[in-house]
Amino acid sequence: MNIHATAIVSANAVIGDNVEIGPFTIIHDDVRIGDNTTIGSHCEIGLPTALAKNPTLTIGANSTIRSHSILYAGSTFGERLTTGHRVTIREGTQAGINFQLGTLSDIQGDCVIGDYVRTHSNVHIGKHSVVGNFVWIFPYVVLTNDPHPPSDVSVGCTIGDYAAIATMSVILPGVLVGEHSLVAAGSVVGKTVEPHTVVGGAPAKFLCATTVIKLKDGTERPAYPWPTHFHRSYPEAIVAKWRDEFPTNGVVGPTGL
Amino acid sequence: MNIHATAIVSANAVIGDNVEIGPFTIIHDDVRIGDNTTIGSHCEIGLPTALAKNPTLTIGANSTIRSHSILYAGSTFGERLTTGHRVTIREGTQAGINFQLGTLSDIQGDCVIGDYVRTHSNVHIGKHSVVGNFVWIFPYVVLTNDPHPPSDVSVGCTIGDYAAIATMSVILPGVLVGEHSLVAAGSVVGKTVEPHTVVGGAPAKFLCATTVIKLKDGTERPAYPWPTHFHRSYPEAIVAKWRDEFPTNGVVGPTGL
Amino acid sequence: MNIHATAIVSANAVIGDNVEIGPFTIIHDDVRIGDNTTIGSHCEIGLPTALAKNPTLTIGANSTIRSHSILYAGSTFGERLTTGHRVTIREGTQAGINFQLGTLSDIQGDCVIGDYVRTHSNVHIGKHSVVGNFVWIFPYVVLTNDPHPPSDVSVGCTIGDYAAIATMSVILPGVLVGEHSLVAAGSVVGKTVEPHTVVGGAPAKFLCATTVIKLKDGTERPAYPWPTHFHRSYPEAIVAKWRDEFPTNGVVGPTGL
Repeated sequence: MNIHATAIVSANAVIGDNVEIGPFTIIHDDVRIGDNTTIGSHCEIGLPTALAKNPTLTIGANSTIRSHSILYAGSTFGERLTTGHRVTIREGTQAGINFQLGTLSDIQGDCVIGDYVRTHSNVHIGKHSVVGNFVWIFPYVVLTNDPHPPSDVSVGCTIGDYAAIATMSVILPGVLVGEHSLVAAGSVVGKTVEPHTVVGGAPAKFLCATTVIKLKDGTERPAYPWPTHFHRSYPEAIVAKWRDEFPTNGVVGPTGL
Repeated sequence: MNIHATAIVSANAVIGDNVEIGPFTIIHDDVRIGDNTTIGSHCEIGLPTALAKNPTLTIGANSTIRSHSILYAGSTFGERLTTGHRVTIREGTQAGINFQLGTLSDIQGDCVIGDYVRTHSNVHIGKHSVVGNFVWIFPYVVLTNDPHPPSDVSVGCTIGDYAAIATMSVILPGVLVGEHSLVAAGSVVGKTVEPHTVVGGAPAKFLCATTVIKLKDGTERPAYPWPTHFHRSYPEAIVAKWRDEFPTNGVVGPTGL
Repeated sequence: MNIHATAIVSANAVIGDNVEIGPFTIIHDDVRIGDNTTIGSHCEIGLPTALAKNPTLTIGANSTIRSHSILYAGSTFGERLTTGHRVTIREGTQAGINFQLGTLSDIQGDCVIGDYVRTHSNVHIGKHSVVGNFVWIFPYVVLTNDPHPPSDVSVGCTIGDYAAIATMSVILPGVLVGEHSLVAAGSVVGKTVEPHTVVGGAPAKFLCATTVIKLKDGTERPAYPWPTHFHRSYPEAIVAKWRDEFPTNGVVGPTGL
């Protein structure tokens, strides 16, 4: 353990082996931090709230939480959680393994997040959102939940596996974004996005099948499903599975597929 | 008083009874904090600026300022100010009672904010904005002020009582958003929004009267005016007034109206 | 030097004369801070990263970095860098003199920024962006870089000198925004913006020449090129040059041109 002298760590927190905690960081009660995890400076981890059904905050092993982040009590994260700086995560969130959350992102609570989900900076995930596996969410995307704000009705969005939601898009309450779909930048999505399709505009409309989009890397291979070509930072076991699951139609590209 | 040992509190600050100040928080000179107020960790309260006409920052009683927030000198907040985390409020803002400002929100200064105004996360309120009473502003909304940026002309927006501005909308400089109106998500609003109407799109156009929108709670009651059905966290005296002011046409809903 | 007792400053950092460093701020190794620079509280300056080609962070003289900001190792800023609060700047950024970056802005790294660039709050500048001189970027603007996210292709945007990009606009990957152009609020820009033109909408289209837009300050002078009338906080030598370079057709306005 390597806890900076200025950090304030509750005696009730359960800290794993080889954990680093940076300067000016606060670890509250009922926090369980897995082995080999690094927590940056100026964080507040396990902030208590009366809204948490369960007071425990569990952070899986081998995680990295960057500076100025705030995680409330009452959430559970699988191994290898990685956050940017200044993320805020409210209570009641259940996230799988390898969740990567970008700088300034804000998860409102009571969300279910799958495995290997990645967001870029400044993403807002409304309460009661359900996000599948291998989803990508890009900067300034908002997942909403209130069909007639303000109200007591909360209908979270559902994002299918491998979907990608591009910059500055809004997903309206209760909308299903299908698996392997692409939401173009600046969209306002008010109805179901079919799997393997591209939608865009405000209100968002069907634009084309995702297979129509070609990689701009000189190969002209299809850009989707993206696991055919994009492997950065995924474990080799996952990539090997993808090589079987997502054939590239014999086209050999620069990454050696 | 319960001031954490690591907090840095000016001897010139006037701190009320039963105030809590969290770790690593700085309270500058000329700050007046009302009784029973809680200020979280890592905040900077009363940051001096040459732009403030009045060096005093006044925070009303029974307020809650969450961690990592920054409030400049020269603003005044009524009782029960509640902020999320990492809010930034510049000088010259005058806010009424029960102002609730969401996480990451940014008030640019010289704004007038009414009573019971609530914003969700990541709202940007430009200089010289005038916001009425009981207004709701949702994530990633921006109130602008410069008709031909950059320039020295600043024409703030005016938001009428009970108006609701949905996610990712921009209100262009000098625009009046009428009372009890609804701006749909993703709008760019360039002209007056009439009271009790819904506008949407970019540029935003009249869509319908607000009465056309029905509650998706199984009752089919009108969703607007929203005080007919949404009462969460408002004081009972306000709700009682609303019961008289906003009749629900005899339709009895699940909240017992 | 005026380093607060709670600041943590590496013995390997090179700190100029008359530098102020606020409470709870961390200065890492390999940081060089120019004379007369002020760094606020709760900052993290020179955060090491394996991604930096050069471990040194250089901040020019006479700079101001406001509280809660995070600057990575491996970037260089000219004199008079001024940041708002909570900015994040990743490695590999080269910025000229007088760069002003608004509160909550996020520069993703490997960007080239000219002289006298100013952004308002909450601007996201994607990796590999190239920003000219005297550019203005307004709140919630995103410069993107991935033509088919997620992928390993990164094509930064290029923003010409004196261009102004208004609130909540997205510049799509590889797009050139011409000099002295104006991107209207809420635009999604997918193709070249010609110099001295206004574009708007999603997808953004040509709207008019910038000269068509008149100042709303009572003078009816053209609002663009903006250096004809907007001089706030620019040095007198620059303004004198502008008086020659951008004649105002003999119309005398309230700023005494």
